[in-house]
Amino acid sequence: MRDDVDDRSLMFMALKEAQEAAVKGEVPVGAVIVMGDLILSGHNRVIMDADPTAHAEVVVLRQASRVTGNYRLLDACLYVTLEPCIMCVGAIIHARIRRLVYGAADPRYGAVESLLKGFELGLNHRPEVVSGLFEDDAARLLKTFFQERR
Amino acid sequence: MRDDVDDRSLMFMALKEAQEAAVKGEVPVGAVIVMGDLILSGHNRVIMDADPTAHAEVVVLRQASRVTGNYRLLDACLYVTLEPCIMCVGAIIHARIRRLVYGAADPRYGAVESLLKGFELGLNHRPEVVSGLFEDDAARLLKTFFQERR
Repeated sequence: MRDDVDDRSLMFMALKEAQEAAVKGEVPVGAVIVMGDLILSGHNRVIMDADPTAHAEVVVLRQASRVTGNYRLLDACLYVTLEPCIMCVGAIIHARIRRLVYGAADPRYGAVESLLKGFELGLNHRPEVVSGLFEDDAARLLKTFFQERR
Repeated sequence: MRDDVDDRSLMFMALKEAQEAAVKGEVPVGAVIVMGDLILSGHNRVIMDADPTAHAEVVVLRQASRVTGNYRLLDACLYVTLEPCIMCVGAIIHARIRRLVYGAADPRYGAVESLLKGFELGLNHRPEVVSGLFEDDAARLLKTFFQERR
């Protein structure tokens, strides 16, 4: 129960980050990483940073690695509003994230359950995965963003 | 023929970068990116940068995006000594790399032809791929590195 309450509040923080991305004209995806007492949040910044790798997940993974001084984020939990793509699944494995919680599935690019089951390829690490948390809110943000840009 | 000469000299530059990585205690993988007159090279820096995403490919993709101010590296050619992993295959797709040339195959983690055919998943971009250039040199660097660390 306590776990669930925490998951919800942390995913809510990731949703706020996704909204922030939309305001800046970036595809609205947000992420939060938790490691012990450390909580860091961020959002997609591909355009503003001119960085093809600056998806929300990578942004917070990098931030946490910089803060802790270690590329292995042992015992970390990552919250992201959208199912990670293959790049982010790879980054999550490299960082040894213990637990991944995501919101909406991504039928076209999702590499956890949709396009590909990226954690079942026999790679050297596999996080615990929870999906569907606030999925409607996460999907609505994306839908509205793309409708407004058409 | 001219193409081949260029490919060889650029991959040779990537191999020099891989050697440089080994000297610094990083897994020896090097990369070069070419876009018009721009040529940038780099190597794996995961440990020294405390960045789980700092594979050689990502390092040069980011550098080129920063220099050009655009996350889409249209018409770019990427040279890397080792077959890219799923994270790097994703990054190559996001950056819209036109042509990928790599050296040694990576039986355990390679996501172009080995573990997975990452460019054949129906994602929104697919580079031209050439493999096997200086593969023995690239593989030998890795083998020696891991033997010395054992």
